[in-house]
Amino acid sequence: VADPEIKTRTLSDTDFDKPSDDRYFEDYKVGAVYEYGTVNVSEDDILEYARRFDPQKIHIDPEFAAAGPFQGLIGSGWHSAGIAMRLLVDHYLSQVGSLASPGVDEVRWATPMRPGDELRVRVTIADARVSKSKPDRGIVSSHVELINQDGGRPVSLKATNFLLLRNPA
Amino acid sequence: VADPEIKTRTLSDTDFDKPSDDRYFEDYKVGAVYEYGTVNVSEDDILEYARRFDPQKIHIDPEFAAAGPFQGLIGSGWHSAGIAMRLLVDHYLSQVGSLASPGVDEVRWATPMRPGDELRVRVTIADARVSKSKPDRGIVSSHVELINQDGGRPVSLKATNFLLLRNPA
Repeated sequence: VADPEIKTRTLSDTDFDKPSDDRYFEDYKVGAVYEYGTVNVSEDDILEYARRFDPQKIHIDPEFAAAGPFQGLIGSGWHSAGIAMRLLVDHYLSQVGSLASPGVDEVRWATPMRPGDELRVRVTIADARVSKSKPDRGIVSSHVELINQDGGRPVSLKATNFLLLRNPA
Repeated sequence: VADPEIKTRTLSDTDFDKPSDDRYFEDYKVGAVYEYGTVNVSEDDILEYARRFDPQKIHIDPEFAAAGPFQGLIGSGWHSAGIAMRLLVDHYLSQVGSLASPGVDEVRWATPMRPGDELRVRVTIADARVSKSKPDRGIVSSHVELINQDGGRPVSLKATNFLLLRNPA
């Protein structure tokens, strides 16, 4: 089962009409904007991720980082991407209609992620179209932004997801 | 300190002339191709990452995954990106010249990562140029491929890194 310590909710006024266990391509409407959160990231979280996947000193050595350009420890950009993904899995993607993603584009780390950050994800549905080659599924393009308490964006990216149609033609 | 369980090495015939604690922009030569590895990924590794960051059933429920399109558990694409990053930090990036990365592009998950995979990273230096606005640093573009034992690519991406010059003009 998923890590039960992470409890988040819808933060925006609107959300999908259908829960994630009854959600299909047709439920992704171009122009919709949803926010989910919040996730608090601790120094221990940053150290634990970085020791395994990104052990650069700026991510694992608080003393070194304090003397550096960011004046303190900052999280791995791949850690911030993982936090954004967790919010998407818990609230945005479908448990029944999601197919594999081919990839993501334009991953940007504009703002450092720091210990104590309170993070939410904002996702904007940028495009949604039925596949021409496989008409049982559609392709949804989403603009994903992980936003901190000051409005900074530790990570943003453009995601592509394949989703089954509820009612194929 | 970094997770000491991960022990990897240079796999290609050539590597940088300089170790990572004496490596600067000038050491990144366009056209160079280096390989580092290998990392073995277990079912437990896949479950641990996914429970925290990507708890989709295909990543956390072996029975569900066995009946699905991949006929077995597959790792999160963000987990494969983390494994590639670890190899880059341990062997490719500079401990003294690396500045923050603005982001990555064209992240692609072409092949599932499966329990038991033996993974190596291949990195190709695609471009390297001195910054016009900040002549103490350069911009290195790298094509990164995480490759499994069958030649499949669980993740590939194009990375952009800023690096200090050893000898600024």
